[in-house]
Amino acid sequence: MYDIVVIGGGPAGLTASLYAARAGKKVMLLESDAFGGQIATAPRVENFPSVKETSGAALANNMFEQVTSCGVEFDMGRASIHKTDGGFVVSTEYGRYECLAVVIASGVTHKSLDVEGEERLVGKGVCYCAVCDGGFYKDKHVCVVGDGNSAAQYALYLADICKEVHLLTMFDKLFCDKKLTDRISSDGRIEWIKNACVTEIVGDDCVSGAVYRDADGAVTYLDCDAVFVAIGQEPHNELFSEIVQSDGQGYIVAGEDCKTSCDGIFAAGDCRTKAIRQCATAVGDGAVAGINAARYVDGIKR
Amino acid sequence: MYDIVVIGGGPAGLTASLYAARAGKKVMLLESDAFGGQIATAPRVENFPSVKETSGAALANNMFEQVTSCGVEFDMGRASIHKTDGGFVVSTEYGRYECLAVVIASGVTHKSLDVEGEERLVGKGVCYCAVCDGGFYKDKHVCVVGDGNSAAQYALYLADICKEVHLLTMFDKLFCDKKLTDRISSDGRIEWIKNACVTEIVGDDCVSGAVYRDADGAVTYLDCDAVFVAIGQEPHNELFSEIVQSDGQGYIVAGEDCKTSCDGIFAAGDCRTKAIRQCATAVGDGAVAGINAARYVDGIKR
Repeated sequence: MYDIVVIGGGPAGLTASLYAARAGKKVMLLESDAFGGQIATAPRVENFPSVKETSGAALANNMFEQVTSCGVEFDMGRASIHKTDGGFVVSTEYGRYECLAVVIASGVTHKSLDVEGEERLVGKGVCYCAVCDGGFYKDKHVCVVGDGNSAAQYALYLADICKEVHLLTMFDKLFCDKKLTDRISSDGRIEWIKNACVTEIVGDDCVSGAVYRDADGAVTYLDCDAVFVAIGQEPHNELFSEIVQSDGQGYIVAGEDCKTSCDGIFAAGDCRTKAIRQCATAVGDGAVAGINAARYVDGIKR
Repeated sequence: MYDIVVIGGGPAGLTASLYAARAGKKVMLLESDAFGGQIATAPRVENFPSVKETSGAALANNMFEQVTSCGVEFDMGRASIHKTDGGFVVSTEYGRYECLAVVIASGVTHKSLDVEGEERLVGKGVCYCAVCDGGFYKDKHVCVVGDGNSAAQYALYLADICKEVHLLTMFDKLFCDKKLTDRISSDGRIEWIKNACVTEIVGDDCVSGAVYRDADGAVTYLDCDAVFVAIGQEPHNELFSEIVQSDGQGYIVAGEDCKTSCDGIFAAGDCRTKAIRQCATAVGDGAVAGINAARYVDGIKR
């Protein structure tokens, strides 16, 4: 019997485990893929407070070592949750874990363009987060690919940092606030290429350009140092959809207290409804969820 | 002219500066006392994600170096804010800084018992945060001093970790939820000493005991390894009370988006209305406030 099972071993889940274990709770941490989450795939991280420069893998590894040194147990597996009379049972392909409270920190994955060169050049110029990686392309030439709010915000964010910004959209308009569209249109630093379907990202060791096809079928090659793909993120909360409330996009509905619609289940990090998804905000959530889950356990134990 | 002035150089203010600077903004960071904030006074920190063990001073110093290496300017001074036609003027004893947006990250200070031995033994057994420092007293004997919600929660938190927990309250009751009082009363691991006025904290190199006086004037010495003082925290937002809305305790009213009642002013970290105040949640706030302040500046610049 565990006090708390944490589902997801990214920064939010790791921090929730740390806080729960330090509160004297027996904690099981489950991960379906690789501990560290999205950040572990980032080749360079400069915006995690107190760490001037590191790799995402090193950052994740430090968190994991810190957490396991506190006595947190861990296992692999894709988890689902069932309510019981006394609490919850979390089940994976490999095990069954009874517990009093659950923290879901299942994260998100970014959507891919799925074009030639993209996967090979991830972390070598193919980026999915302007706030995370924009700083590495100061005074460089970058492309932003996408049609929504994020693409518009990426373009504006990068315009303050980079020398040249091309925004490539599939249609002749952006699907975002009119105000953002107006700003993109009037911003002399952003060149907006409409009706552009990106077909390839080019580069040997790192990105050197992108190829797109316009509405007439004409193919153009564009020199650039990075391609920021901003076509959305996907949460993976399908297995929790019957036990906690999610929004239309699949994010678990929870405020900054990380409490979900189900008493005893908390949601932390990128998987919950929130506006800003950064490693720094994930660890903030983890602390809150870990503390609140520990308090919840205290409340039902006595 | 600055884009953003950040008031307060603790983890929230430092992280807000980092994110704002990385977004290409010109940032001035002001601190009235010492950069690093409350965490800088902690001799040992084990619950900041990715850093297994460090001193608060080292953690703060790393954050400060990271931030200044991004081009953030800094100065000392106690800041107040005035609205102008074009934005804000932040003034201190030493300077005057025009800007478009402000992040307030003024933190809190804990209240002290103000008894003999307390100040001398801070960080040597005198603690103000159970979640932060409880882990250092595993299987030890600790006292909690206080009469409210925090004192009750500290006692319950520490009961899971420590061998013996004494809760000393000034009166014969706790000023907190009845449920918490019931839990304290029925928890066999907590010895509640009522009508106890702590008069001294004893120890040479570190805490060895506490002295209290009971309602009859009798003086008792209690052996212990740590004294957790839980008599409240104080925000320091007096100088901002006319420009942003505060709650009854003096905390600046702001949700997890860090937006205050005044457009263009953001509040991050311990100084804002929130339930959990940890270094990890402060950096989360800092990221949000830095990003949202940068977006606000983008919105009015164009």
